[in-house]
Amino acid sequence: MMEAANAASTPSRSDVKLSPFEVPKASDVLASELRERILSGELVEGVPLPAERDLVKQTQMSRATVREALRILEVQNLVRVKAGRAGGAFVQRPTTKSMVSSVSMLIRGRRIKLVDLMETREALEPFCAELAARNRTDADLTELDRANEAIADPEANLEQFLQANLDWHVGVAVAGHNELLIGFMTALSQAIYAGTQNEAFVDAEVRAVTSQAHQAITAAISGRDAAAAARRMRRHVHSYAAALAESDERDAIDVGER
Amino acid sequence: MMEAANAASTPSRSDVKLSPFEVPKASDVLASELRERILSGELVEGVPLPAERDLVKQTQMSRATVREALRILEVQNLVRVKAGRAGGAFVQRPTTKSMVSSVSMLIRGRRIKLVDLMETREALEPFCAELAARNRTDADLTELDRANEAIADPEANLEQFLQANLDWHVGVAVAGHNELLIGFMTALSQAIYAGTQNEAFVDAEVRAVTSQAHQAITAAISGRDAAAAARRMRRHVHSYAAALAESDERDAIDVGER
Repeated sequence: MMEAANAASTPSRSDVKLSPFEVPKASDVLASELRERILSGELVEGVPLPAERDLVKQTQMSRATVREALRILEVQNLVRVKAGRAGGAFVQRPTTKSMVSSVSMLIRGRRIKLVDLMETREALEPFCAELAARNRTDADLTELDRANEAIADPEANLEQFLQANLDWHVGVAVAGHNELLIGFMTALSQAIYAGTQNEAFVDAEVRAVTSQAHQAITAAISGRDAAAAARRMRRHVHSYAAALAESDERDAIDVGER
Repeated sequence: MMEAANAASTPSRSDVKLSPFEVPKASDVLASELRERILSGELVEGVPLPAERDLVKQTQMSRATVREALRILEVQNLVRVKAGRAGGAFVQRPTTKSMVSSVSMLIRGRRIKLVDLMETREALEPFCAELAARNRTDADLTELDRANEAIADPEANLEQFLQANLDWHVGVAVAGHNELLIGFMTALSQAIYAGTQNEAFVDAEVRAVTSQAHQAITAAISGRDAAAAARRMRRHVHSYAAALAESDERDAIDVGER
């Protein structure tokens, strides 16, 4: 099933960018070399990297340095380390996970305002709805319908409502089949989830209006009416943002770790 | 100038998410604890973290573990490690840098198509132009004008033209003053730069058309005409994407490391 990765060549220092007078760390040089081979597709998903001792031999670097380089790639979600007899470091293709976590860190660490998140959403979502109307599959529609049912459930508590809401919005992006937009929307939705976790705002009326809007947009996506999907999404996102701005004057939001 | 950070409390294991049967690594637990304190604003930009030996004492973790945790935060651009007598690990606020690098990794590693990048740009840029017309300062306009001059320079080689093009597009996002959109556009622009590094496509006519479009959009931004800025940007991005699709059938692009 798995093919062993080729031996790592001695990493070249030219891959690592430096400020003047900085000396590159050996672990950064090795991590950069291996990262390059993963991103270029030379090292394929699921393939084990050479064992630690082999990397030590090939690179003439210390065991500690090799270990540090592998740890860097693990933190960047580019390898997965498994313990045990069949263990080792296995190549992972980049997923939206790293992007979602870096966007979340940016939003939290720089105290990005909820109004900025909402603006970004107004830019992205009508376009996602348009793409969804063009590209959706039947399986995508099933997911949207499932989320709509959960949103309309009068028994749902705040967390369940917000999760279903998030599932629907990400579901629209997924139905558009543009992987980059899916990544942006996933990152953004998680931040908005945290920003709208507010019983006072999400009352019965907001829920009813949301449910209706989602159903109307879903109908346009289902009927492959791209213009209506975009127009209805624009109206929905805009009025949600306006209602939120009215009910809530908080400047910064806490995205939390999800 | 700098205040010493408070002692780190013993990290709690609840911060680290795990699959069943996984044992959290001590360095992840400590990194997560420190990350939380940076993102929450408790540890402020520029503040030095406690020295390695103090973290060892406070956490009862090994020196290697503490070092690994600091390395993880360094890879995530949340601390900057300085060598020497006044050295140590200093807190950094998250910047768009991590986001740009994770987006670039996603685009390269998943072979995201240029057409998907262009679609994402069509979603974001008209909105950025609209925001720019509302929020631009005089300094923002100066930057846009500087980029426009460089774009119009008939002596500019391909790299210079593309860099000026990138500067202008990012400059429009900057003039919108929405930090999240600036981050998305920076990441996207660097990928598009690489995707359009093509002498055959960027001929004299493309340059002239680009220069004219940018000047018309800049005039709308300068005149605070949000509707015209958005409309002209939509037309510009769309026709650039259409021309590119005609001239170039490549499916995948190489974003490279910049």
